[in-house]
Formats: sequence, C-alpha cells, structure tokens
Amino acid sequence: MINITLPDGTVVAHPKGVTPLEVAKGISEGLARNVISARFNNRKVESVTPLETDGSLVLYTWNDEEGKKTFWHSSSHVLAQALEELYPGIKLTIGPAIDAGFYYDVDFMDHHISEKDFPAIEQKAMEIARGKHEFKMREVSKSDALSYYKEHENPYKVELIENLEDGDITFCDHDSFTDLCRGGHIPNTGLIKAFKVLNVAGAYWRGDENRPQLTRVYGISFPKQKELTQYLHMLEEAKKRDHRKLGKELELFTFSQKVGQGLPLWLPKGAALRERLEQFLKSAQKKAGYEMVVSPHIGQKELYVTSGHYAKYGEDSFQPIHTPKEDEEFLLKPMNCPHHCEIYNAKPYSYRELPKRFAEFGTVYRYEQSGELHGLTRVRGFTQDDAHIFCTHEQLDQEFKDVIDLSLYVLTSLGFDNYTAQVSVRDPETPEKYIGSVENWERAEAAIINAAREKDLNFVIEPGEAAFYGPKLDFMVKDALGRKWQLGTIQVDYNLPERFELTYKGSDNEMHRPVMIHRAPFGSMERFVALLLEHTGGNFPLWLTPDQAIVLPVSEKHEKYAQKVLKSLENCEIRALVDARSETVGKKIREAEMQKLPFMLIVGDQEMDQGTISVRRHGGEDLGAISVEAFSELVENEINSTLKRFKEV
Amino acid sequence: MINITLPDGTVVAHPKGVTPLEVAKGISEGLARNVISARFNNRKVESVTPLETDGSLVLYTWNDEEGKKTFWHSSSHVLAQALEELYPGIKLTIGPAIDAGFYYDVDFMDHHISEKDFPAIEQKAMEIARGKHEFKMREVSKSDALSYYKEHENPYKVELIENLEDGDITFCDHDSFTDLCRGGHIPNTGLIKAFKVLNVAGAYWRGDENRPQLTRVYGISFPKQKELTQYLHMLEEAKKRDHRKLGKELELFTFSQKVGQGLPLWLPKGAALRERLEQFLKSAQKKAGYEMVVSPHIGQKELYVTSGHYAKYGEDSFQPIHTPKEDEEFLLKPMNCPHHCEIYNAKPYSYRELPKRFAEFGTVYRYEQSGELHGLTRVRGFTQDDAHIFCTHEQLDQEFKDVIDLSLYVLTSLGFDNYTAQVSVRDPETPEKYIGSVENWERAEAAIINAAREKDLNFVIEPGEAAFYGPKLDFMVKDALGRKWQLGTIQVDYNLPERFELTYKGSDNEMHRPVMIHRAPFGSMERFVALLLEHTGGNFPLWLTPDQAIVLPVSEKHEKYAQKVLKSLENCEIRALVDARSETVGKKIREAEMQKLPFMLIVGDQEMDQGTISVRRHGGEDLGAISVEAFSELVENEINSTLKRFKEV
Repeated sequence: MINITLPDGTVVAHPKGVTPLEVAKGISEGLARNVISARFNNRKVESVTPLETDGSLVLYTWNDEEGKKTFWHSSSHVLAQALEELYPGIKLTIGPAIDAGFYYDVDFMDHHISEKDFPAIEQKAMEIARGKHEFKMREVSKSDALSYYKEHENPYKVELIENLEDGDITFCDHDSFTDLCRGGHIPNTGLIKAFKVLNVAGAYWRGDENRPQLTRVYGISFPKQKELTQYLHMLEEAKKRDHRKLGKELELFTFSQKVGQGLPLWLPKGAALRERLEQFLKSAQKKAGYEMVVSPHIGQKELYVTSGHYAKYGEDSFQPIHTPKEDEEFLLKPMNCPHHCEIYNAKPYSYRELPKRFAEFGTVYRYEQSGELHGLTRVRGFTQDDAHIFCTHEQLDQEFKDVIDLSLYVLTSLGFDNYTAQVSVRDPETPEKYIGSVENWERAEAAIINAAREKDLNFVIEPGEAAFYGPKLDFMVKDALGRKWQLGTIQVDYNLPERFELTYKGSDNEMHRPVMIHRAPFGSMERFVALLLEHTGGNFPLWLTPDQAIVLPVSEKHEKYAQKVLKSLENCEIRALVDARSETVGKKIREAEMQKLPFMLIVGDQEMDQGTISVRRHGGEDLGAISVEAFSELVENEINSTLKRFKEV
Repeated sequence: MINITLPDGTVVAHPKGVTPLEVAKGISEGLARNVISARFNNRKVESVTPLETDGSLVLYTWNDEEGKKTFWHSSSHVLAQALEELYPGIKLTIGPAIDAGFYYDVDFMDHHISEKDFPAIEQKAMEIARGKHEFKMREVSKSDALSYYKEHENPYKVELIENLEDGDITFCDHDSFTDLCRGGHIPNTGLIKAFKVLNVAGAYWRGDENRPQLTRVYGISFPKQKELTQYLHMLEEAKKRDHRKLGKELELFTFSQKVGQGLPLWLPKGAALRERLEQFLKSAQKKAGYEMVVSPHIGQKELYVTSGHYAKYGEDSFQPIHTPKEDEEFLLKPMNCPHHCEIYNAKPYSYRELPKRFAEFGTVYRYEQSGELHGLTRVRGFTQDDAHIFCTHEQLDQEFKDVIDLSLYVLTSLGFDNYTAQVSVRDPETPEKYIGSVENWERAEAAIINAAREKDLNFVIEPGEAAFYGPKLDFMVKDALGRKWQLGTIQVDYNLPERFELTYKGSDNEMHRPVMIHRAPFGSMERFVALLLEHTGGNFPLWLTPDQAIVLPVSEKHEKYAQKVLKSLENCEIRALVDARSETVGKKIREAEMQKLPFMLIVGDQEMDQGTISVRRHGGEDLGAISVEAFSELVENEINSTLKRFKEV
C-alpha cells in the first residue's frame, strides 16, 4: 500500500500502482468523470499513470489551467492524426497547447490548406474523437525512436530526438497514430466533444527564419459543444472590442509609418483620457505618501552597466546613441529604476526619513521585433506608472501591504473585480541562483505571503518564478470576455540597492542598505488603456470617458439652445459637445452610440420651451426631460458611486 | 550738401563729409557728448567717419545695445594695449565685445597671469583711458598688413589677415597701439571711466582643440564709476541667486555623473513645482482651445529627413539609434513638430474644424558639447511647453494675437513685467533665401506686426532675422537683476505643412495647405525654472513655491499641537511641514529663511492655549497670532491677488 496526500491534507491509502483516475474514483464518481490529468510529487502524470510511491497528488479537471492544457495538448494529437489521414505524406513537427487552444506546425509538402478545408479537418477530428481511443505512453530507446521517424521520412522529429537523452524518450499512441511526446493527456479522445480549426499561419521551423517555413494550424476543442459556441461568440465579441479598432473609431491613438511602428501617438481624446487616469493614480499616490520625480529618457551606458541591464539585455535592445564629437554612449532607458536609484543617491538619508517613495510616469523604450508589435499591448515605447520604494527591512511588511491596497484600489476602481494573484518565490532546489542573504529572502517571501493572506487575495505560490534579485507578486485580471491578463507587479529587489550602493544611516548610527520595491498598478498606460478598451468595449467609466454627453438639436432652430445647454454643462464640468450637423436626430443618435457616448441630450421645441433636455442613455434607456442641473446631479452621483477616493474604498 | 534721414523721419542737410558726431551736435550738445557709434545706411560706422552720400543715420549711446558693444569693443583695444605694455612679447589674437563686457584671447608665451595681476592691468588700462586717445581707423593693403604682423612675429593675426580680401582690411590706431580691426569704436579712450578685469579662462585658437591654447582675459568697462559698482554688486547678487546653487539648496533638481551630464533629474520638490507650472499653463491652454497630445521621444530617421531637420542638424546631433536585427534607424526627437504634423495627418480636416491646436509638454534631446552645459539653462534634454497651431491663412491674424495674449498671461503671472519683443522678418535684399509665396510672407509679417502693435508690445523689427520658413516674434524679459533673457517664441511656418503635405478641405471644396504656428511661452520647463529661480532668488510666488509654510514648535511639548496645525493646513490645501527637531526656534527660523519658506508658523504655550499660530513672513515681518482659518484666508487672498485665471487678467 502507498499513502497519497491530497491538496486538502487528507491522506488516502491505495495499493501500489494505483492510477490518479482510480484515486479520483475513490473520492467520487463525478470527480473521476471529470479528471483530465494530474501532478504527482510536483511532476506531471497521465490520469492512468500507475503511482508507485507515497506522495502528494493534485487532480486536474477542465476547470484548471493544467486541465485545459492537457485537454488541448491531447487534441493536437487528434489534429495531427486527422491531417495525416487527409493529407498523406505531410511531415509533423511540434504541437503544443497554448493559452487558448493548441496548434500543430506541419510541413505540408505539396499540399496547401486554407479556410475552406477546415470543415473536413474538423469532421475527421471529431470522427477520431468519437472513437474514444485511449492515449497510451510508452518509453522508447533513442535508436528505436530515430529509426521510426527515419522510416517515416520525418527529418524534423529526427532532429528533435537527436537532441534528447536516451532513456528520456517517450511515444504516445492512440488509435493508429503515434507521436513523439513528453506526456500529459486526457484518458481518451472521447472527452473531446467539440473541435474547431481556427486559422493557419506561416511559422519557421524552430522559429528560425533561415530554416524551412511550416504551416501552423491553430485549433481549439472543448468537452462540451456549448462551450465551443460560447468561445466562438466570445471571439466575435473580442473582434468588436479589439482595442486597435476601437482606438481608431474613438480617436484615442494612432500610429504613423513615418514616426515608426510600435510608437503610439496619443490623439487629443486619448491623451486627455490618459491624463485623467494619471491624475487618478497621482491623487491616490499622494495620499499614500509617494513623491513624484522626473528623469530623462536616456542614460549613459555606464548607468546600465552598473544596474546589470546592459550585460543582460544590451545586445537585444535599441543600440547605443553616440555623440558627434565626444566619446560618450547613451541608451534609451528601458526602465526607470536606475534613474530613481540615482535620485535616491542625490542626498544622504537617515532611517527616520524612510521609506522614500519615488513615483514617475516614466516613458521607457524597449526593442520588439516588428512582427511582435500589436496595437497598444506590444509596443516599443510605453509609459510605466512606475514607483520605487526605498525602505528598511523592518518596513518591508507594511509597505508591501500598502502597495497591495493601492493596487487593488486601482483595479477595482476601473472595474476589474475579477482578479487573482501569483506570488513568485525561490526555487528551493537552486538557492545559488539568487542574490541576497537567505535571511532577507525568507523575510521578503514571508512578507509577501503574509500580505497576500492578510489582504485576503486569491493567490497561488509559484516556486522558482522569483527573479534572481527578489520575490514578487503579480496581479491577473479576467476581462469581461473571461480572458486573463497580467496587470500590475509588485517586486522586491535586493540587487539594485547593492549595485548602486544605496545607504541610509540606521538608528545604530551605522550605514545600511535599504530594500527596494518596484511597482506599477497599471503596468503601463498603453497596455492598461488597451485592456480597458477591450474590457469595457469602449464604454469607459463615466469619470474617465472622453465625452460624457452630446447635445443633439432636433433641427437648426434648436442649435442656439443646444449651445446654451453646452455652456451650462461646461460650467458643471461635464465634458460635452454639440452635434450641430443638419442630420436627423435618428442618425445623430446612431452615431453617438457608435462613439460610445454615455448620454445623448436631445433638444427640440418642447425642451426649449421648458428649459430642459431629454436624456437618453447609451444603449437606449430614456431618462425623460430634466433640467441641466438635475442631469449634472445625476452625472455627479454616478461618478461618485463608481469612483471612490483612495482609503475610502 | 547731403541729406541725412534720422530715425524719426526728420531729414537734415549737412555738407558732404559730415561725421555722425557732428550730426549729433547739430541736434543737441548733450546727445553729442553721449554718442558712441552710429549706423549709416544700415552699416556700422565710427562716430567720426565722414558721411559722403545721402542716407539714413542711427546714433547710438550707452543706452543702446549697439552703443554698449562699441564701448566694450573699444575697451578690448585698451585691454590689449595694457597687456602688451605689462607683458612684452605676448601675441594678441582676437578681442570682441560680448553680452556683458569683452574679452581678449592672448598667447601669453612665457607669462602667466592670475587674479593677483588684475589690479595692475586695470590700473594700466585706466591710465591709457585717461589719455583720451582717439581711435583712428585706416585702410591698409593686405601685403602691408601681413608684413606688419610678420615683423611683430604674430602668427595669429597673420592667419586672420590671410583669410581677408585685399581692399577690405583696416587697422585701428590709438595712442601707441595698433590693431587689426573692422571698426566700431567710441571717439576716444577718455569715455572709459571704469575698467575691471573679471577673470581669465583657457580658450583654443579658433575654438579648435587641436590648435594652441590661449588665455581669454574677460573684462568690463563703464562710462561711470557708479555703473561698475552697481555691476559688481549685481554679479555678487547673481552668484547668490545662481540657479544651480539654489536648485541644490532647495532640493529642486540634481545631476548624476552616471545618468549623464546635462540630463537633469527632478527631485520631488522640483518635480511638484514643475507640475504646478504645467497645470497652470494647461488650464490656460484649455480655455484657449488647445488639446493635449502625447508623442514618443524618438522617431524614425525618415521623419527628420522629411522635416528637413536631418539634413540640417543630423551630423551635429545625437547619432541614430539602430535596432539589433532590423534595418531601422531612429533619432532622439530634437523637437515635437514633426510628430505633431503626423498627428494632424491622422485624419482629414475641413476648414470648419480648424484651427487645431495641439499642445504637449514634450521632452526633446539636443546634443550640446559638455563644455557648453550649464545647470538647467544649457542641457541635453529638456521639456518644451510646446504647441502647434494648424490654421487657415485667414485665421493666422487672430491666432497670432491669441498666442500673444497667452504668452503675456504666462510672463506677467510669473512676475516678468519687464518685457520687450523682437519681430524677425525677411531680409528684403535676399528674397531667394525664403520659402513660401511672397503673398503669404507679406500676410504673415503684417499679421505679426499688427498683432504686436494691437497688443501694444514694446517691440523692434529685425529684418533678416526670420527663419527661412517664416517670420517670428520673440519675447525678451529683464530679470530682477536687469539681465536680459530670451523667453517664449511664436513662429509662423510654411515649410513643415508643405513637407508633411498637410491639407484641409476649404469652403471651396478644394484641398489647401494650413499654416502652422509654433509656440512655447515658457520656452522650456528647465530654462524657465532656472530663470525664475534667478529672478526670484528662490522666493517663488506663493502658489508655486514648494512648501508654503513651516510649523515651528517651540519645544517638544508643542509638537503634538504642531502636528494638529499641520493637519488643518493640509485640509486647507496649504503645503506645509513641521520642523520637529530639538533645535531652538531661532535656529529653525534661520534655516527656514535659507529654505525660502514664505511663512513660519511658530507654536508655543500661548498659541496652544489660544488655538492660534504666530505667523512670521519670510524676511521677518511679524503678522501676529491668528487662527489657522485666518491664515488660510490670508494665503488664499495672496494667491488670488497674484494668480489670475487666464482671460481674467
């Protein structure tokens, strides 16, 4: 018998060789039906892998990330089989699960596939799925593996195997199909109830543009047909909410080929919205004791040699800027921390003056390949809502909690109520990878975990995910379409204080190193605005949105009154405009809807006579004819109900 | 007889060969005593140059820039003679007048001079001055000029003469001294009543570090001893107000060798002050119909090739930034206009939508040699309070006037009441130097001049000073020490709209080019803050200053009350702090004075009992014990009396 420890601490005894699926059955039939894969003693196993020792077992279902990955990876085997059967002679390469679905990179030889072939592939894949074929892993020797793929004339798999260690190679069989595979499968293909080929794209073998070009076939699959329908609906919805599309329609930002790709130009409405976001955070930061600083967008190469960034990223970054006559080299700043360290170094500090919290909306530049650029989410220049806290080790605990408070204030004020956190700590097996004393690491990790617990965060601890210079906490949010995004990070850093020789005089009159916290609740203004656009579909919170109301005169004779209404709105600090074109009110309303204007204020004869405005909400709700004052109160109340001041939340 | 036209239009007849001095005598003896030099038919002449033709004559006295330049250039001859007599065998090179005084670059051979030698030089110079030696110009042939200086073994003058045209070479004699000289002298050395050697510095021959190093001897001279005394007092005062010194003492900004010279780091107090300045201008700009935009700090080289900046400045600027893999080149942006042109180009405009006024606090980077850098006034990275107005030709007039209004609002709100303007127009003799139609130029120049007149500016028109792409208006301010600074510029531009192919659809349904106005009332945040520091000596206007008040508890037992006062002040939005150190109130007051704190609020037993604060103004004025509310009202009144809102001024 062996003892299996479950995540809740329960220990169950089973005969040696028991499978995760059997363990699940012992708990409940329902669970067993849903078990997809498992992790045993922190190693991924199949649901049918026999367990031979005592150990801890985590069972995964479709509801877990791990479960989904396993489901999709298994589906890529099915896709591969379907493709091989439909297009004999093609060469398979690799087929991993991704965040949403999976792909398989294929050398299609003389075949060509396009969207019109998708239904046939899907049909074939579902045929295979319905066969309920079991996935079976088996070990093969390197020579057997090589001869198998040489026989099948697949140079790609041969190349992959050549780089593997003998004794470490496994094949996975299902139905008539065999693939080189590390494992992680659903029990059988029958769990796949819906299968969709999403698109095809070009991809280089091993991502190297000098190697053969392959075709990447993207797919997705689900355990229920309904989930596929929902997913496809979500994709449609996402297309409508694409921040690049909305950003253009709402005139928030643009790109210019002349200025350069990946370098956003913020148009007036976007710049004003961004400024409101910045003021919102500035005001909370002021309450939280931050001080704004301003630093240049370049720094001497020496600065980044000191920080260690040059050694690590220099070659892959924007290259140094030379001066015409003098022997100087500058770099575009990829982050603000080295500058803030030098600001800290501008004067000596006593422990009584700490923490110092330096904040800056600092624009940084990082080179991305042109193919990687995407709207505002992947750019070459972006503005971080950055801050660096310099504190004593004793203060770390409280500072970390305060940063969590501020981050949550930002997330929830902007409507991201669905968030989780990930705490990244050391890999206990490779302590040599980390700088700083063990004592400090333990203290910092404990500080983060305690803070996360005390703030009641829904968080996971990821060993080995810490940076070499300190542990961190990342916030993940789910947007309105259920997509996950990584947002602000809070990072503890022992490295830069050392490298920049930062000091403070302690109560013992000795010099000490402060500890540093990096944090950015938005992450970057660009990425955050993109996310907010996709999350809200352009229907920003009222306090933030570009124009809060539009006055729509019914005809030309109401225009003067419309302008009077506009003036009154402006006096009430409501951002508004007038649509004075000689179009029908119907058309004006339709266009205002497109422009996501929260309120349409229709003014015709009756309104003019009574000194009112007829208020129509975005989406159609009719609030009737009211005075500008009543409307202003309505706007104010709505803003106050969504935008609390920091520390009032 | 010839007809001489004076600046006021009067025409006086004089015999051929009359000198400017004689013309002056004909006007008044007093004027004649003060005449220093003159300009005849727009060419510089000596006061004793015989005038041979009809023409227009401008007479200069000490009160004119031209007069001062002539006075100081003449004084450099006297300095040179004094040096030659004191240090026989030295080689003279060049000796021009500068903004304040003059210098002479000298190869001192085996001699060394330092501050202790200054009195002897001054004494010798005054001796020469008192000789009342006349300055006499004479033409010399190139060969005579060369042999004169070869004889005197002066290779520098020989080199200078070699580069001159025969027939265009003049010498100037006075007393026993002769110098190669283009002219522009006072009648005789006797006008110099005070003479001071200010300092010595190294300088390369012709500014080339590969040529011999010379000694630059700086001096200044005056027609009255009193003026020298005042000047030296001003220098002392300027030293105390040096913005680099005050910036450090008040913790406004710093520089770091690691970040790089000429790249300011704004410390919290400085960054907050700068933000207040920015908000002040933003708020006025909003009223004036500007829209903020945000653009990146780099642009493709192509962008500057289009704008023409690359051809003009490329080689002397920060060099291009390369990308690691792709064949792309970027430049640090030296100005914001090309970016704003691309923002304009992001959508089509109709004439009804113009003017568009795009504003940005845009940080730009321009290479300056390290030797040229100076505090915040000469930096390598600075933030312009930039804006570009795109308007129709018909709108130019009104827009220009509006920009003058805004600029004057900024200047006068910040206490620069002593300002003048310079309007730079085409050189009528070289029309080929300018782009754009004659009609547009005439319209634009007329618009600027009319605007300047209508706004009752004290302005001069400078022909030939316009940029090749349009005329401009510059504001000059005099600071508290009487020093002149160039501040904001308003510039009309026909070039960039052409180069960026900017268009709008006119009322005629045809496409037209808009005209562009560049403007920056502050100039740059860095330079403006430096100037404001020197103008105010660190005593900023109350609304702007870092901390408005400091609470000084008399002893430890008053600290709690002091903190309570601080809270109340904060609730009244007064920026304040508490000096809770266990020092005497006397010492705290002295330090608060050093920190230029506008109000010191002393709290002891009596204040605690009565719930008051004893208010002491910076400088010593005692306002007695009052309540926090009364103090808050006082602060508010003072702010409201100095800081009017735009369009209320």
